[in-house]
Amino acid sequence: MTRAAVLGAGSWGTAFAKVLADAGTDVTIWARRPEVAEALATKHRNPSYLPDVQLPAVDATDDHVEALRGAEIVVLAVPSQSLRANLETWKDALGDALTHHDATLLSLAKGIETGTLLRMSQVIGEVTGADQDRIAVLSGPNLAKEIAAEQPAATVIACTDEARGIALQQASANAYFRPYTNTDVIGCEIGGACKNVIALACGIAAGMGLGDNSIASLITRGLAEIIRLGVALGAEPVTLAGLAGVGDLVATCTSPLSRNRSFGHVLGAGGSMEAAQQATHGQVAEGVKSCTSVRALAAAHDVEMPLTNAVHQVCHEGVSVAEAVGNLLGRRMKPE
Amino acid sequence: MTRAAVLGAGSWGTAFAKVLADAGTDVTIWARRPEVAEALATKHRNPSYLPDVQLPAVDATDDHVEALRGAEIVVLAVPSQSLRANLETWKDALGDALTHHDATLLSLAKGIETGTLLRMSQVIGEVTGADQDRIAVLSGPNLAKEIAAEQPAATVIACTDEARGIALQQASANAYFRPYTNTDVIGCEIGGACKNVIALACGIAAGMGLGDNSIASLITRGLAEIIRLGVALGAEPVTLAGLAGVGDLVATCTSPLSRNRSFGHVLGAGGSMEAAQQATHGQVAEGVKSCTSVRALAAAHDVEMPLTNAVHQVCHEGVSVAEAVGNLLGRRMKPE
Repeated sequence: MTRAAVLGAGSWGTAFAKVLADAGTDVTIWARRPEVAEALATKHRNPSYLPDVQLPAVDATDDHVEALRGAEIVVLAVPSQSLRANLETWKDALGDALTHHDATLLSLAKGIETGTLLRMSQVIGEVTGADQDRIAVLSGPNLAKEIAAEQPAATVIACTDEARGIALQQASANAYFRPYTNTDVIGCEIGGACKNVIALACGIAAGMGLGDNSIASLITRGLAEIIRLGVALGAEPVTLAGLAGVGDLVATCTSPLSRNRSFGHVLGAGGSMEAAQQATHGQVAEGVKSCTSVRALAAAHDVEMPLTNAVHQVCHEGVSVAEAVGNLLGRRMKPE
Repeated sequence: MTRAAVLGAGSWGTAFAKVLADAGTDVTIWARRPEVAEALATKHRNPSYLPDVQLPAVDATDDHVEALRGAEIVVLAVPSQSLRANLETWKDALGDALTHHDATLLSLAKGIETGTLLRMSQVIGEVTGADQDRIAVLSGPNLAKEIAAEQPAATVIACTDEARGIALQQASANAYFRPYTNTDVIGCEIGGACKNVIALACGIAAGMGLGDNSIASLITRGLAEIIRLGVALGAEPVTLAGLAGVGDLVATCTSPLSRNRSFGHVLGAGGSMEAAQQATHGQVAEGVKSCTSVRALAAAHDVEMPLTNAVHQVCHEGVSVAEAVGNLLGRRMKPE
């Protein structure tokens, strides 16, 4: 039986722990808060996230050393901007798992690190010293709530070492979760890092009263700029046409569960940034933050990303929605 | 001023005539029924389709010879399965436009001809004798109702002759319609021909109560099999990641206006084919018919299309929805 540690007990970490356990993998979850670890260990429930979901038998602890003991798969399920700080804390125990259990590190985090502009697998490599072929990423149309409800979904597990990718696939495949393998780590990460910005743009369009053609056009032109960025960084375009690109983008841009879409909707309907934040329970949508790092990464590689720029203008440069849309439609006509 | 004839006054032909006129092109519409031609010519309205839409100044007639007189752009806007019969009738007048006005033929029809398994541009070439570089196709996320309401949308105009593509782009670009050029005619046609089958599958999933992950997974895996078929026929994968592939697919699969989606919804909820047909005003959804020709085309080129097969099983082989879904999820795991 394969042993996995899931580090992070947010909604996606919790849902993915259930996926692994339902696939027959032996799972220990690490939760930062002792009361969450306790509820997970004794009641197999996460009161803070997914309170209605009954998990199968999993172990849980607030001690990362205990969670990592004997782990052959280490799932990193903390938010992207706090991944580095967490890794620093876990460094010794992770080194142990890498050295003594030939562990594979699997990142669920999606984003570009602010400042360094590194992808999550690069941050993991930098802090842990692990070779890139021991670092895998998982990405796809995977809204945690629906996975936890066992609604069928597909995903991609990317690792430059194919054998490790297949081992992760076998450790997580079950009746409702279908992972495909891929060796294009960069492509998988770029899709996940950029999608929230496009979802924000789709929300803005929907808030302006635009229909399905406009949303589909935005998703597709958003995909085109994501592919341009990915290719500049060494990704395969076909990965971005797959589950980690199109799949995740479509789910995020069309789901009413998406916070980015709701946030943009308020802006598109004429609301202020403050009003949008109030409408999404006081939280700033991820796309508001990530448009800055994605834009900087694109600039560093001389890649044109007009939609990302427009979102940045609206969120950070005081440009009105109408003006930003005008800028987009007024661009020179060109080949696709 | 460029002169265009739009042959066909259905909702898309009518909306596209408006697009052309709003772009400053001189348009004559041909309508099969005299009363429709009359209403278009005198009131600039189409009482049968888009009755609420006021068109700009366009001419209209039920005489195809008159419509084609002096046309430099000939827009073919009749349904795919009746295109050949129409072309036979129009043959002489089309030959005249090709010979004397260097006309470009632009196809709006989406489909694979039953029996011959030809794409629409191939049917056009076969009947008219026109070179392939004089035949263009237009495809994208273009729900006619929304275009007629001037909601911004993008599209692709594909022609192997780039200069003709650019001329068509200039003749149709306006404040709400943004055409991109492309030289990959095959890719543009395959996206449009296959999308309705995948929309039917998405409708079935939604009818079963599945959520946004499942729909996004179906769209993406549907795209993957469309790309496989396209590549086997000589298309560029990147075209199918664009507006004529992803864009049209996303609009058709997510729009509540889509008849294929509604039809599938009834099947997914346990209804019969008859019940589905009643729910869509007595009409059989396009995907029910096209899954047969798409499946035959795939078989002829040894391409695996598991979603198209599943839709065919449900619609034509008496397989239950539950069984078809089981067949899909039970497939061997593989790389993306």
